[in-house]
Amino acid sequence: MPEYVSDAHDPRLSDFTGLRDVELRKSMEAEQGLFVAEGEKVIRRAIGAGYPVRAVLTTERWLQSLADVLGDVTVYVVSEEVMHGVAGFQVHRGALASMERLPVPPVTEALERASRIVVLEDLVDHGNVGAIFRCAAALGVDAIVLSPRCADPLYRRSVKVSMGAVFAIPYARMDNWYDGLEQIRAAGFRTLALTPAQDATPMDTVEMSDRVALLLGSEGDGLSSRWLREADEQVCIPMSPTAMEAGVDSLNVVAAAAIACHGLMRGTSIHRGRRQP
Amino acid sequence: MPEYVSDAHDPRLSDFTGLRDVELRKSMEAEQGLFVAEGEKVIRRAIGAGYPVRAVLTTERWLQSLADVLGDVTVYVVSEEVMHGVAGFQVHRGALASMERLPVPPVTEALERASRIVVLEDLVDHGNVGAIFRCAAALGVDAIVLSPRCADPLYRRSVKVSMGAVFAIPYARMDNWYDGLEQIRAAGFRTLALTPAQDATPMDTVEMSDRVALLLGSEGDGLSSRWLREADEQVCIPMSPTAMEAGVDSLNVVAAAAIACHGLMRGTSIHRGRRQP
Repeated sequence: MPEYVSDAHDPRLSDFTGLRDVELRKSMEAEQGLFVAEGEKVIRRAIGAGYPVRAVLTTERWLQSLADVLGDVTVYVVSEEVMHGVAGFQVHRGALASMERLPVPPVTEALERASRIVVLEDLVDHGNVGAIFRCAAALGVDAIVLSPRCADPLYRRSVKVSMGAVFAIPYARMDNWYDGLEQIRAAGFRTLALTPAQDATPMDTVEMSDRVALLLGSEGDGLSSRWLREADEQVCIPMSPTAMEAGVDSLNVVAAAAIACHGLMRGTSIHRGRRQP
Repeated sequence: MPEYVSDAHDPRLSDFTGLRDVELRKSMEAEQGLFVAEGEKVIRRAIGAGYPVRAVLTTERWLQSLADVLGDVTVYVVSEEVMHGVAGFQVHRGALASMERLPVPPVTEALERASRIVVLEDLVDHGNVGAIFRCAAALGVDAIVLSPRCADPLYRRSVKVSMGAVFAIPYARMDNWYDGLEQIRAAGFRTLALTPAQDATPMDTVEMSDRVALLLGSEGDGLSSRWLREADEQVCIPMSPTAMEAGVDSLNVVAAAAIACHGLMRGTSIHRGRRQP
């Protein structure tokens, strides 16, 4: 149901205001239980994953692009100028949807049928969280557990960078950081702490088991000493000694996560690929 | 030698103008044989790699941070406001250096002592090129070959995203795309074309040899059909069929490059890590 709106400050558009104001959006989204998805593909994936749509904001040009999946959802149609005025940036493929959050399951529930999981400790960058969700989902990781301070996977930028992968992989958030890892170990997961320290076990040679959890630390400091100590094994990605001497002494967190997630799948049917039955 | 400058349009600062104007910088840097490095660490790495410094632009606050490596280079000292006025953005760690480009070696020379190389076909995003250089250098890849249309590794953003890794790994640019791959195969490299197609050989099971080249395609379209056809083998990173059905059907180019570069090092001493002699 299209409704034409000509004023960027129209109260009907309130779900979409302040999209570039991280602090405002954080409190507003938590309070109202909503999040924003951007672009046709990502909106389709969110709907496909069962998130109810509250409203859509789009321009005449993109009005038809989502028509087949929106049913009787209200679609606010605005000019390009008003769109830019509301969002504060060039909207990717001309559509924004505000959507209802669904309850996030408790950690134990997310782990129930999982054999390979990733645990993120205090990753605060929404783009990095989104990128790691995309890797983990694509490579076949079963679930992601977030420490209490990790950035929100449903924040607009996380959703966008993940290309909608945040809707494709189950995740849960720990109640508290201090005992969080113990809960995962108690569920029978062998915990591997990724560290840049080159005297750790190379990821490709570490012993795997039925249930394995890969622990990834924050952008700057890596994993906390508590988690490094509590983990069953510290693992690393072998790096070139020559490069390290030249000051190239680390991988960015997404590249490291990609390599480690790929390694995490070793021994599973996905890792062997279609050609190797 | 500090020179205090109070006007953002002072002609002495001309090396640093228009830093946000990609087209302007491309032609200007090619014409004058210069590039710009940003931030203390990256500038140090460029100097360490032998690139001569033309001039440095900084603020009083950061003036001393590079003093030990600059010798008699002219350092233009400006206020924060002028710095922002010249650069057009918040300069990372308060220092920019304009530096002389060095001759890029011919492809044959870059390959001489290499056993593991990466070949990039038409990657146009400077950030992606920088990120792949960082991965390749950190993981121990010996050299990178660029197709003629690939983005410039010494463009400011490539340098920055690479954290200076563009100075740590030899690279060369093909004279022409059409025969470029043949030259690499003639040098005895087994060529592996990375593709998302899941019926290709999984990267971890592909046969390696003394000299192996990993071919990575552009952000949108991947490798050209010519290169896919010419390569000795098409390789893939196995992905989750469930995720692919849910629309998560690819990895971003940097994540894919990271996993594939790691796989490329299989059979080398680096890949085995320090713990496995």
